Amino acid sequence: MIQENSATLNGLRVLEIGHFVAAPFCTRLLGDLGADVIKIEPHSGDPVRQWGEQVEGRSLWWSIHGRNKRSLALNLKAPQAQEIVLRLVADCDVVVENFRPGQLEKMGLSDEVLRGTRKDLIIAHVSGYGQTGPWRDRAAFGVIGEAVGGLRYLTNHPPGTFDLPPVRVGVSIGDSIAGLYAAFGIMAALWQRDRADGDGKSRSLDVALTESVFSMMEAMLPEYGKLGKIKQPTGGGIATAAPSNAYPTADGNFVLIAANSEPLFKRLAQLLGKPELIEDPRFNGNRARVENAAVLDQIISDWSSNFDARELQAMLDTSDIPASKTYTAADAAQDEQYRFRKMVREVQDPNLGEVLHTGIVPHIPESPGTIRWAGPDIGQHSAEILSDAGYSPTEIDTLKGQGVIR
Amino acid sequence: MIQENSATLNGLRVLEIGHFVAAPFCTRLLGDLGADVIKIEPHSGDPVRQWGEQVEGRSLWWSIHGRNKRSLALNLKAPQAQEIVLRLVADCDVVVENFRPGQLEKMGLSDEVLRGTRKDLIIAHVSGYGQTGPWRDRAAFGVIGEAVGGLRYLTNHPPGTFDLPPVRVGVSIGDSIAGLYAAFGIMAALWQRDRADGDGKSRSLDVALTESVFSMMEAMLPEYGKLGKIKQPTGGGIATAAPSNAYPTADGNFVLIAANSEPLFKRLAQLLGKPELIEDPRFNGNRARVENAAVLDQIISDWSSNFDARELQAMLDTSDIPASKTYTAADAAQDEQYRFRKMVREVQDPNLGEVLHTGIVPHIPESPGTIRWAGPDIGQHSAEILSDAGYSPTEIDTLKGQGVIR
Repeated sequence: MIQENSATLNGLRVLEIGHFVAAPFCTRLLGDLGADVIKIEPHSGDPVRQWGEQVEGRSLWWSIHGRNKRSLALNLKAPQAQEIVLRLVADCDVVVENFRPGQLEKMGLSDEVLRGTRKDLIIAHVSGYGQTGPWRDRAAFGVIGEAVGGLRYLTNHPPGTFDLPPVRVGVSIGDSIAGLYAAFGIMAALWQRDRADGDGKSRSLDVALTESVFSMMEAMLPEYGKLGKIKQPTGGGIATAAPSNAYPTADGNFVLIAANSEPLFKRLAQLLGKPELIEDPRFNGNRARVENAAVLDQIISDWSSNFDARELQAMLDTSDIPASKTYTAADAAQDEQYRFRKMVREVQDPNLGEVLHTGIVPHIPESPGTIRWAGPDIGQHSAEILSDAGYSPTEIDTLKGQGVIR
Repeated sequence: MIQENSATLNGLRVLEIGHFVAAPFCTRLLGDLGADVIKIEPHSGDPVRQWGEQVEGRSLWWSIHGRNKRSLALNLKAPQAQEIVLRLVADCDVVVENFRPGQLEKMGLSDEVLRGTRKDLIIAHVSGYGQTGPWRDRAAFGVIGEAVGGLRYLTNHPPGTFDLPPVRVGVSIGDSIAGLYAAFGIMAALWQRDRADGDGKSRSLDVALTESVFSMMEAMLPEYGKLGKIKQPTGGGIATAAPSNAYPTADGNFVLIAANSEPLFKRLAQLLGKPELIEDPRFNGNRARVENAAVLDQIISDWSSNFDARELQAMLDTSDIPASKTYTAADAAQDEQYRFRKMVREVQDPNLGEVLHTGIVPHIPESPGTIRWAGPDIGQHSAEILSDAGYSPTEIDTLKGQGVIR
């Protein structure tokens, strides 16, 4: 049964034919805001169920990644699968998928076939390089999207300083960004379809991991095109603003200090006890400070390393200068602001007990998103979903017996 | 005059009262998909106009960041400003702002006042820590959001390997992610407001930079809550899947190789000429490979460093293994897939001449986004916008003379 709720996307029904991170993250966002999400999984489950730390064979990541979704374990290779999917699609507004381009078509689920059942269907395709072009058939994961998007090269210390390989940001940021772009595009297409002056039209989205990351590269491309400048990594700093960096503390932490505006820099200079820096031609104005960022960072580091992170935070807060320790999982879990805003909250997971979940973004006070349940078991809702679609108990048992569903 | 266009968000009108990156990036995304975006700027312009490489005093970043927007240079401190904003709001669906919480209220532009003019207005507030809670008044920039969101700590080599500070990803990713979340939330609120069964209601979004980043931290929080595990940086690798890393090449580049699935790893082992790795208990299954990732990465590095990036790419493509050089601006600008998909395109900028712009994400083939014009001059559309709002030429001249608009 579709769950009525008070969240913003109540009334929206989404079918996910996805796996790994990008498409499931997209549907997690839609589900967090109240959409009814039906996830089709193989009988072995989404591979993410095997990723990361496990408790009694169950992934903690899945508790969040699969939350608010209903799971249908369906063997898409079975001859009966196409009809089942199409009967579900008839009642869905959106299909989200992230197979290799052309895969769904091979399964008899091309856009045309899907629209044959639901003519105003919104279809979101998420892939590595996109649904068209010479590279469409290339395999890609999030890390590839980050590399081709330009993010990985820039995530490093300046060339010639340490000569180490660039690092990953620690999460599948490329997948998540692509999933978020898909969620945005889906809602844009739904708005134009469903508003009073809208066109009622079906639309297909073609979201590429590479392009999703590349779209966030700011001035990297125009500066190359016009000036031949190849944007280089800048370690902890910012190429366009200073001072802004991670500065060492006496207790072995790092504190981010972002004093890259005139009033902020003035206040920082006062706090350092070096008001003369304000009039110093090397630091007078952002452009001058950027040119002399290394010198400035050294001055700030010499100061910051005399204090513990706590002391620094207190002093910088008093001076109203943007600053923060680089948070770990422990810092975040205990953060009073996250707790106050329910961005860190306990969720009862029937399989795992109490699990800490990240909250819901964006926060919409008039109709906040909800965590209705944690990531379900494989096929937990198979019978319920097929019953909603009009299958009789006997038909459902038969499909189970034939190994079509689980 | 509002510009009719064929893109998905044609018919949507948005007022931006923002600056720097987050709110303007949100409105850029809406404008790319066809929304009419009115940007209110101070007479000195958005500070981003001063950031990055300049050509004849004009920022190349702005050519993209400000594209498709109409600029109204308005002194918000002037007594006449409130009435002007309210007359604009009357014709807008959405207001996007990223001032410090409470600032707009001080200017006489609280949510209540704005709704007094447009009762079904969608209002998106983007801030560092959110509109509520003990930290709401704290100053924050993107880098702070990344630090508090947990991203910065994880963007580093493993503890004890080099003991260097964590690095920035090279762009204001926290701001851009928050802007994208705001765009998603705006469309969700508009869909529920405007659809046939919708509620016609105004909604306010409360998007925090910190929470936008934190929401992408995957299993970091639940693994800490349940197991006390503090997620650590892993350099170029992935904590949950192997092999996946940046591997050195003979010509001094790095190539990302993501062979972290059974079939992919089998093909990689064959390509390395070491089929015995497939049955090797250290590498048999993802969990085993993750535990022995360092050994495995060394084996792959010893192989990769014999070949140039081009050769490696060709071999890995032939074996259908996800791989890519870490792209620079030059690699992206020349990439055939980006060119084919118009993700790299020449745009005529009246002030800068031909400028390379990144294309539009998501790609929606039935009604693709458009780049109608590049970032405008400060106040380029001031008169036109006030005229649309019913101000007479005389009134507009008077406001110019009084220094209210520019």
